[in-house]
Amino acid sequence: MKEELLKEFDEWVLKLSAYQMALSLIGVDKQTLAPQGGAAYRDERTAYLAGEMFSIETDLHMVEVRRQLLAEDIDADKRREIELMDKEIEHILVVPKEMFVSYTKLTAEAYEVWHRAKNAEDYTIFEPVLKKVIEASKQMYACRNSSASMYDQMLDDYEPGMTMEKYDAFFDRVRERLVPLIRKVTEAQQIDDSFLKQPYDVQKQKEYMNRVILPYLGFDSSWGYQNETEHPFTDIICENDIRVTTKYLENNVVSAILSTVHEVGHGYYGHDVAPEYDGTIFNYGISSGMHESQSRLLENYLGRTLPFWEANYPALQETFPEQLKDVTVEQFVRAINVGKPSLVRTEADELTYPLHILIRYEIEKGLFTGTISTENLDRTWDEYYEKYLGVKAPTARQGILQDVHWSGGSFGYFPTYALGSAFSAQFMKAMRCDIDVDELLRSGRFSVIIDWLREHIHRYGCRYNADEIMRMATGEPFNPDYYLDYLEEKYTKLYHL
Amino acid sequence: MKEELLKEFDEWVLKLSAYQMALSLIGVDKQTLAPQGGAAYRDERTAYLAGEMFSIETDLHMVEVRRQLLAEDIDADKRREIELMDKEIEHILVVPKEMFVSYTKLTAEAYEVWHRAKNAEDYTIFEPVLKKVIEASKQMYACRNSSASMYDQMLDDYEPGMTMEKYDAFFDRVRERLVPLIRKVTEAQQIDDSFLKQPYDVQKQKEYMNRVILPYLGFDSSWGYQNETEHPFTDIICENDIRVTTKYLENNVVSAILSTVHEVGHGYYGHDVAPEYDGTIFNYGISSGMHESQSRLLENYLGRTLPFWEANYPALQETFPEQLKDVTVEQFVRAINVGKPSLVRTEADELTYPLHILIRYEIEKGLFTGTISTENLDRTWDEYYEKYLGVKAPTARQGILQDVHWSGGSFGYFPTYALGSAFSAQFMKAMRCDIDVDELLRSGRFSVIIDWLREHIHRYGCRYNADEIMRMATGEPFNPDYYLDYLEEKYTKLYHL
Repeated sequence: MKEELLKEFDEWVLKLSAYQMALSLIGVDKQTLAPQGGAAYRDERTAYLAGEMFSIETDLHMVEVRRQLLAEDIDADKRREIELMDKEIEHILVVPKEMFVSYTKLTAEAYEVWHRAKNAEDYTIFEPVLKKVIEASKQMYACRNSSASMYDQMLDDYEPGMTMEKYDAFFDRVRERLVPLIRKVTEAQQIDDSFLKQPYDVQKQKEYMNRVILPYLGFDSSWGYQNETEHPFTDIICENDIRVTTKYLENNVVSAILSTVHEVGHGYYGHDVAPEYDGTIFNYGISSGMHESQSRLLENYLGRTLPFWEANYPALQETFPEQLKDVTVEQFVRAINVGKPSLVRTEADELTYPLHILIRYEIEKGLFTGTISTENLDRTWDEYYEKYLGVKAPTARQGILQDVHWSGGSFGYFPTYALGSAFSAQFMKAMRCDIDVDELLRSGRFSVIIDWLREHIHRYGCRYNADEIMRMATGEPFNPDYYLDYLEEKYTKLYHL
Repeated sequence: MKEELLKEFDEWVLKLSAYQMALSLIGVDKQTLAPQGGAAYRDERTAYLAGEMFSIETDLHMVEVRRQLLAEDIDADKRREIELMDKEIEHILVVPKEMFVSYTKLTAEAYEVWHRAKNAEDYTIFEPVLKKVIEASKQMYACRNSSASMYDQMLDDYEPGMTMEKYDAFFDRVRERLVPLIRKVTEAQQIDDSFLKQPYDVQKQKEYMNRVILPYLGFDSSWGYQNETEHPFTDIICENDIRVTTKYLENNVVSAILSTVHEVGHGYYGHDVAPEYDGTIFNYGISSGMHESQSRLLENYLGRTLPFWEANYPALQETFPEQLKDVTVEQFVRAINVGKPSLVRTEADELTYPLHILIRYEIEKGLFTGTISTENLDRTWDEYYEKYLGVKAPTARQGILQDVHWSGGSFGYFPTYALGSAFSAQFMKAMRCDIDVDELLRSGRFSVIIDWLREHIHRYGCRYNADEIMRMATGEPFNPDYYLDYLEEKYTKLYHL
């Protein structure tokens, strides 16, 4: 009986993973190579396949199989796997199909309206549909009949275990310590980074990426490939098939490099989850914050350091002698770490980034607890930016309309970006107790660092939640002070504060 | 009633096309970019999706829907569409599932054995499994209970309407006229083509392809893209999404170009079938011979001509001044048309190619009519090559083991390659009555040629069979003499016979 149920469950997981693979490959193709002309044909058929997958996922017979399995004596891994899937599917099953369909239509429409509003630089175009999306999200969450507050449920969806109480504590510390630090940095002697923004031939950038950076990172073509796209992302087809994408900018020599280091961080997570978890929720269900902790660890805590560039700068200088011949590696590293309040989140630096997130968190919280409304939300947005970062968007395009997330109903997702960075700081602290990170970076033994991450973090996937992994890897619960200490120390030194 | 049945039929076609699209995109990806490490994971899931598609395709309820529809008063297009699908699916349905599964396993095994035998250059390794594949093919075809001879059925599968009788008549003419012609060419003063085989920087070849050849052909990135692969192919995802692939060889400056012109010929066929046929069997069910007629028309009848190169050679010469500065366009065109008996089909030239096919046709026919056995088939192979082409393979690797087709049970497919070339000759004859092909090629108005092909051939897809299209496009039935006249005239002139 138990064996049969297990077999049925595993076959169902395999089936789901087949559709997931197809949809992922279709998605990667669409965002990299696919000719635009075929979009309508492909989209119609992709929607059909997504519907097929949805039917398999929400199959009521499998709900029963899982219920029966949970009543059996099964091993802890399998129990956790079933529970994670149950949670995910339960949230879909409680929503009446018509509500789900109309929500999908609404967000598709909202995306178009957002796009139009952004181009017109006019928030009032977007406001009515944003209001509708929020109302529809509330309706969907109401179906869950949970005793938890609505925004807490949203936060938990993206980062299991997180609540407003915990995020409040986190962001309070961020606000307290970063706002004054950023003010000091802004008033200090500014760092010259103009040489980063000269014209850098894209073909040469690519050649440098393939010859120097990817091999340094150990990103191997037998299990991963890199392609170009408009908005860089990573897709984990399976552990030995990781698709990383990047975008080369002619007027920025580090953008593609650091973005690639970031994406390779996501890639290693997918590559290094224990092989027996491949194709299961233990790999594809990793929380946003945990995934972001690994990409940001590679990007910021490794990729922006002097030792990283002591290994890689000479070849960059050789590739671009004209632009970089008079720039020392120390000057270069200072320039790629400039901290300066700005308007657009995706272009923000490591120091000011968490405040962009803080602002979004406060607004989302207000929207769902009823203290903020969508009306005049552009003004609220601008007030927050002035208060925390001292900058003001000339139009809503660089203001409230900059992010796509809300049009898609993604509320509760933004905070995980900041959480990820904070997780990384604590992981780095623990890693530095075990291995000489700087020396490894300097001497090109990047794989030893990856080994540490695999051993303490990656291999578990989401077999354990973020809190459990944090305790196992660092010996203590999550503590944001490691993050704030790191930023304070780094920027105090950088700006001679 | 009729309306409902039609709706059901069309929805079923859409469903099938969704799986077909997914499998095509997965296949293209596998052959171009996919990291090798993920192959096992992907293959297992791809097989599952193929199984899903198979179940939908062979759905017995749909057999009934089609039967009922054929009894209704439906338009001629729909009737033809249903009949074509019926024929294809009937051939699957008559085979017991176990037989089909064991056949699939056998051919997968045979592929591995063929690969091993080829590397070991030893036909005796391959012989036992080839024998089994032939026996299994016979069993499968026996299920059809057709009164036609078995090899006729195989021929008809790849080129509807073709039989041994028709192919015999065709190949008799080929043998009669080409064997002596090739002998004369072999004895004539040889043409120097050594300059084609110097080192040609691959990066520059790519740059020339993208800057000169693809734009000249009108291959537009809005509906197609080109990528690299090991064995070039074209995949038609839909009319506005055509994937063409190529392979660049450092020591051959025309290989990638002419291979691309060939694949673009397939691509235009897929692109130009009437829009209302997109996603139906009218596009994906086009016969091998007809498809090959279009790729070879572009490659040989256009891409190997002086006017084509009058338009494109100057830029090639500029790209490779060192190698080509002393080579005139006339010398260049003579060199890319050298006719010389050789051992390997895929590397054969336009003149000797049909004899490679003739040999395979005679062997296949013998195997299925019982006059030839697999035992010592390598010797039979060598005898044919000596007799028709005057060459002998040093080992079975360049002999009987060169082609993958038989390991996969593809019998009856080879003849379509020669048929395609012969179809092209007759199409070209008709086209030259309507438009000034040479002047259009010379002046870069390639689109006018494509317009002619669309108007007379492409737009129909397989709404009509090859014979019907031939009559409509050229005003007479297929006549192989156009092909043989063309070769005789071309090579007589080229070699001053």
